[in-house]
Amino acid sequence: MKGFSKLSPQEKLLLASERFEDPASTAKQFESFQHPDEETQEILSGISENTISNYPLPYNVAPNFLINGKLFMVPMVTEESSVVAAASSAARFWVEKGGFHARVAQNIKNGQLHFLYGGAADKLKAAMPDIESSLRAEAKPVTKNMEQRGGGIRTITLNDRRHLIDGYFQLHVRFDTIDAMGANFINSCLEVFASALGSFFDNTDGFDRNDYEPLMAILSNYNDQCLVEVSVSCDVDALGHAAPQLSAEAFVRRFILALKVAESDIYRATTHNKGIMNGVDAVILATGNDFRAIEAGAHAWAARSGQYRSLSQADVQDNRFSFSLQMPMALGTVGGLTRLHPLAARSLEMLGNPDAKALMMVAGAAGLANNFAAIRSLTTTGIQSGHMRMHLSNIIMQLNTTKEEARYIKKHFAEEKISYQAVAQFLEVIRKRGT
Amino acid sequence: MKGFSKLSPQEKLLLASERFEDPASTAKQFESFQHPDEETQEILSGISENTISNYPLPYNVAPNFLINGKLFMVPMVTEESSVVAAASSAARFWVEKGGFHARVAQNIKNGQLHFLYGGAADKLKAAMPDIESSLRAEAKPVTKNMEQRGGGIRTITLNDRRHLIDGYFQLHVRFDTIDAMGANFINSCLEVFASALGSFFDNTDGFDRNDYEPLMAILSNYNDQCLVEVSVSCDVDALGHAAPQLSAEAFVRRFILALKVAESDIYRATTHNKGIMNGVDAVILATGNDFRAIEAGAHAWAARSGQYRSLSQADVQDNRFSFSLQMPMALGTVGGLTRLHPLAARSLEMLGNPDAKALMMVAGAAGLANNFAAIRSLTTTGIQSGHMRMHLSNIIMQLNTTKEEARYIKKHFAEEKISYQAVAQFLEVIRKRGT
Repeated sequence: MKGFSKLSPQEKLLLASERFEDPASTAKQFESFQHPDEETQEILSGISENTISNYPLPYNVAPNFLINGKLFMVPMVTEESSVVAAASSAARFWVEKGGFHARVAQNIKNGQLHFLYGGAADKLKAAMPDIESSLRAEAKPVTKNMEQRGGGIRTITLNDRRHLIDGYFQLHVRFDTIDAMGANFINSCLEVFASALGSFFDNTDGFDRNDYEPLMAILSNYNDQCLVEVSVSCDVDALGHAAPQLSAEAFVRRFILALKVAESDIYRATTHNKGIMNGVDAVILATGNDFRAIEAGAHAWAARSGQYRSLSQADVQDNRFSFSLQMPMALGTVGGLTRLHPLAARSLEMLGNPDAKALMMVAGAAGLANNFAAIRSLTTTGIQSGHMRMHLSNIIMQLNTTKEEARYIKKHFAEEKISYQAVAQFLEVIRKRGT
Repeated sequence: MKGFSKLSPQEKLLLASERFEDPASTAKQFESFQHPDEETQEILSGISENTISNYPLPYNVAPNFLINGKLFMVPMVTEESSVVAAASSAARFWVEKGGFHARVAQNIKNGQLHFLYGGAADKLKAAMPDIESSLRAEAKPVTKNMEQRGGGIRTITLNDRRHLIDGYFQLHVRFDTIDAMGANFINSCLEVFASALGSFFDNTDGFDRNDYEPLMAILSNYNDQCLVEVSVSCDVDALGHAAPQLSAEAFVRRFILALKVAESDIYRATTHNKGIMNGVDAVILATGNDFRAIEAGAHAWAARSGQYRSLSQADVQDNRFSFSLQMPMALGTVGGLTRLHPLAARSLEMLGNPDAKALMMVAGAAGLANNFAAIRSLTTTGIQSGHMRMHLSNIIMQLNTTKEEARYIKKHFAEEKISYQAVAQFLEVIRKRGT
């Protein structure tokens, strides 16, 4: 198929629908998910490429998030049934115990110019001060505006990596992009550097441009100097009601054991961190940020010790329980989709139009909340009863019940063990007896 | 705020809107994103908790994906402007060279029962055959249906982990869940095991239930026996047109160097793999699967050697270039949202209603396609020109242009270097001169 991308949105929709058994009703269904307001739909369709409709994800809110003394209702976009319920329940639990404490110590982002250099390494290293001035000067048209807002290029470091690959060097560049995620800014700077470094070799005595081969100029999502830290803490005694039929001490002991398992076992650590990302990503999606970027950085960072480990930690000291999360997270509250997507803009408004650091704290708090709720369930009642309760309405919908049947099923399974099979069987029974 | 979750959807929407400057218009805007058909909206609202609206993500298609000789149009849900264009371009590039070759050797999923055991470890180990029969028998009501479909519990292994935590053991359980992602099935089995193991100790001479403390029963997203492998290959000579002004040999040399960098440098590896996940996640979202699960497993697996590395590899042998991706991926095509979400069901239909393994191959191919496009751009033209071209319509929308101004800007910037600032300045110029 040639030239598909050149077709009009409507032509694309019709051509895609032709692959279906019933093209006309398929096209109509895709259309039904488009926004009724033409201008709004044009914005949504302009975001990506070959767009034929909108894919709706549930837009949810989790109230009662107390973060650094300020109360938030947190917008969360997720398709997983238990995520918002878990976040809300944990937020509600901690709101009476001082809530979440969060900070972002640094907001520095990384980028790299990877290149090969065949000349004398010592001379290259010695020339770094001159190279740095030259690169900064060449990048001025790109950095001017960011500098006016207080950001820009922070440091430029030359790394000799010839032990890994013949002739391989890096310029490792640190950026401050303030409230922007900054991808375009960073990549533009680095691409200017790639050609400016060539010009430097061309124009400087003792250097030869032919010794230089730029390979790639690109930001890194491994932002180890852009960490958000979130914690909750309370006296151990205050956890007496954390779980039914479990003393505060027993609850804390089991909770900390669960964290130790996630610290030592990669199979568990992966799912432990997945639970954190359930909360984090829901906020990232709701605010128009890029979850792949944060996922990659967080999980790679979780492996920094040489073994993949839990991103969160729990501890008791002087009879005080604390639970904390530290992870890299580079979010933006300006640029990208954050203001362009109408509901991303609403999400930011719901959060009081935070700056990037404040948004990172909210997303981190959602991550820690989901992690707390998961560990609490896992070490006490197990997660299935809660999960299946959340999942009950999905099961009911899959079974195509009437509204009356649905009400009846919900009432029956309020106390019964839920499974797809059990609900299906119960539905058969009530249908047979004509309830 | 108490009892929020008990409110009706409409009450939640109104209460959430009260936090905004203009509650009435906010509520109206949220409502405008709901689906006009009441039943469809009820399905969407039933997926999560505290749902007040739908968050629309662009639903896009990438044509020309040739995978194992079969041609696909691939549904991709993503907010990132360049992802679908990159996937489409790479699919188009490879379709004439035999397309993608993919396989899923195994489809085994992991789950664990973590527990403490204070009795004699040797006796516990010796009793494993009896324990296994007992657990399998107790789980029969849960496994029966899955077994009828050819799946079920594969192996149960006892791991002694007392060197990590006092008294810590695991039952590591491998499952085959066929075409379901299988989370509920696996967790239900494991929770049955947790209590069945207690009963075994209770009912078996020489064992004491009091020696046993179950800690957590939960699936793992680290599915190292559920790997998808995707590759493309062609004669080196056939890559003469891969990039302008670059010979086939030079292109291949630079491409392989880029892969070596991603193999050796964690800053680059993170973003390299992020680019793969751009494609993978877009298919996962479009088909109602859980991207957090796949993200966690993929990145943790990328760190299995002790250093976080690239998930893809490139090579030349006997003048033949090959590029391949291997990663864990546990997807479902039945259960969960896959059939419940109306557009997830449509996506599966668009792909010819694949089984789980076939869907994993499509998602893997999208990942490799995005990775190929990214490395090709990075090592040749740089990514910014393409990115900014994709991003141009976003910039235009942010600047609130008229349609005529937008057309004029697009024409002008077809050949010019694009940046937000450049477009804004150009707009100012044409407005001043009244074009």
